[in-house]
Amino acid sequence: MPTPVKSVLPVVLLGCGGVGRYLLRHIVSCRPLHANQGVAIRVVGVADSSSLLVADDVHSSGLDDALLTHLCAAKAAGSPLSSLLGQVSGNYQLFRNPEARSKVIDAATKLGRTTGLVLVDCSATYDTASLMKDAVDHGCCIVLANKKPLTGPYEDFQKLVSNFRQIRFESTVGAGLPVIASVTRIIASGDPVSRIVGSLSGTLGYVMSELEDGKRFSEVVKTAKSLGFTEPDPRDDLGGMDVARKALILARLLGQQISMDNINVESLYPSELGPDAVSTEDFLESGLVQLDRSMEERVKTASSRGNVLRYVCEIGSKGCQVGLKELPKDSALGRLRGSDNVVEIYSRCYESSPLVIQGAGAGNDTTAAGVLADIMDLQDLFQRTA
Amino acid sequence: MPTPVKSVLPVVLLGCGGVGRYLLRHIVSCRPLHANQGVAIRVVGVADSSSLLVADDVHSSGLDDALLTHLCAAKAAGSPLSSLLGQVSGNYQLFRNPEARSKVIDAATKLGRTTGLVLVDCSATYDTASLMKDAVDHGCCIVLANKKPLTGPYEDFQKLVSNFRQIRFESTVGAGLPVIASVTRIIASGDPVSRIVGSLSGTLGYVMSELEDGKRFSEVVKTAKSLGFTEPDPRDDLGGMDVARKALILARLLGQQISMDNINVESLYPSELGPDAVSTEDFLESGLVQLDRSMEERVKTASSRGNVLRYVCEIGSKGCQVGLKELPKDSALGRLRGSDNVVEIYSRCYESSPLVIQGAGAGNDTTAAGVLADIMDLQDLFQRTA
Repeated sequence: MPTPVKSVLPVVLLGCGGVGRYLLRHIVSCRPLHANQGVAIRVVGVADSSSLLVADDVHSSGLDDALLTHLCAAKAAGSPLSSLLGQVSGNYQLFRNPEARSKVIDAATKLGRTTGLVLVDCSATYDTASLMKDAVDHGCCIVLANKKPLTGPYEDFQKLVSNFRQIRFESTVGAGLPVIASVTRIIASGDPVSRIVGSLSGTLGYVMSELEDGKRFSEVVKTAKSLGFTEPDPRDDLGGMDVARKALILARLLGQQISMDNINVESLYPSELGPDAVSTEDFLESGLVQLDRSMEERVKTASSRGNVLRYVCEIGSKGCQVGLKELPKDSALGRLRGSDNVVEIYSRCYESSPLVIQGAGAGNDTTAAGVLADIMDLQDLFQRTA
Repeated sequence: MPTPVKSVLPVVLLGCGGVGRYLLRHIVSCRPLHANQGVAIRVVGVADSSSLLVADDVHSSGLDDALLTHLCAAKAAGSPLSSLLGQVSGNYQLFRNPEARSKVIDAATKLGRTTGLVLVDCSATYDTASLMKDAVDHGCCIVLANKKPLTGPYEDFQKLVSNFRQIRFESTVGAGLPVIASVTRIIASGDPVSRIVGSLSGTLGYVMSELEDGKRFSEVVKTAKSLGFTEPDPRDDLGGMDVARKALILARLLGQQISMDNINVESLYPSELGPDAVSTEDFLESGLVQLDRSMEERVKTASSRGNVLRYVCEIGSKGCQVGLKELPKDSALGRLRGSDNVVEIYSRCYESSPLVIQGAGAGNDTTAAGVLADIMDLQDLFQRTA
């Protein structure tokens, strides 16, 4: 006999493209597992960039699993949420922007201080930040896979983490890898974290480790693109801004009151080859090769010292740096091959030899799994019913 | 202005030798940090193997920090708890065994279903198991660094984890390394863990990696002993039982309903050289060298295949094995040097490349830090007061 459900977690999801869609699939497929653990996740609303699908009565019911499954299929096919209207029956309503936003606030207001609500942000925009801040004011819990609300003005970060037990953001750094959770544990135990060094871009991890074999930079980047490891324009990876956002989140987690402006970010291409000057096509065809020579020299210089080059973020007493760094071949970061992420955490307990966490740090499935683990980790804040 | 305290966590600690003593020190030194996080840990009782020191009124007050500091100093000097009686003033009482045990149950009964209570086991005995089970019945939370209550009869394990949100046991495996927390997250996200492979003995990790350099087994074990890496009788490490206990905890966490009897444990010494047949001194002087030849051969055979030997536990669909295993030189386990622990976790999300967690897996400071992180992780189950 399964354990009767004890905790109900109402959820509103912002962003149901890649990660969000996988999250909904995971929620539906995990129902029996979660019931065994005494938890039921009730999805009361799902929003994409233009609309919100919300349950008729958010207090008493959620969107049913058949609807969520339809929704996932529609999003996978590239259709917007609004395409479901009229096609699928059920006890839901659809609101378009800008009304959709106020309806999310409605749900947050209704549920935040009664049953509780988890507002989950799997979008990739800065636009959700004010919504998330409002939700915090209404007593809601917050789970983010979206880095942007945490990497805007410091005041926004401060606001979002002001009730630290009600926010989780594991999937903003290293997808599902337990980096934030581990750093949070270490800090809570009074073991001061002195330094974090990480390779937090699967793309750049792959590129830098391939260079060791004597391959040319331009070739490796093109191969990475053909393997689907890069953004459509590889400069979005090579510029380092995505790594910088993750570094900023870690730095702020360690208590550094800094912003993107305070981070030294080394771009692997010069501004003359930037998106404003050169098209993606031209960059791939004739821009990249211009970088081969200098990269080859840097790799050789490192190698002559027994080191390898890695694109890392480093957060420590001197602030936060993002860029290429020479590292010993036999360190956790130096040994890294392929597209895994690696994070080294140094503290009193992990002083001479760091705590190392390594594994796949990207992918919709893994990122969504991290978000779901975060949601489940909030369960004790929700009322239990016998 | 510091945040006013919101959650009070009453704690009774069993075992205040090595790890327990460090825990008390950490609790005292973390007061300002925890106050900032809205948490106050109230130590209402501390027990060693013969006595219990308990606050006069467990409902309203704890043992004060001056007393806890005295207590740590006494235990560090090898004195029993009872030596404090009369020497240190304060609002506490001291009970000796067997009365001490019933007084712990008293506190559990009084606090378990009212303010809540965390019963922390930092002892190293099976004797606490029934006490911990009683505490579960009284609604208490449980935190263990002690492996033994979790590695006795399966029914005991089942009872202790029956309310899974109220138990933490991170420090039973890999000290403070976030192994249990990470596996629990992965399971909660519906990502089924298929296999865990780990090097969970710093001693055996050190011994096996040193053998690669061509050193003799007997020499390496003696060096490990002189460095303080082994138990007083190194056979306590070489027999593999400590690793087997950790493996059993991981296997049970993955849902395997097994017991120690079901684990194949390879001992690195034969029964003819066991404690019943040979004294520690004789084992070190003349027993160990008898093992050099066969170990040398096994290391060479592995090396000829590009592999290294590691003493690992492996938990998977075929149950649970503990012993020497040939592993690729360039795997996370194969690359391991020194006394770090390493755990590789395989699941759907971490299928071809595992999630790897590596770092110091022993030491009182680190183990106590893991226990404190566990206690802090329970805070949402305790009443908050404005």
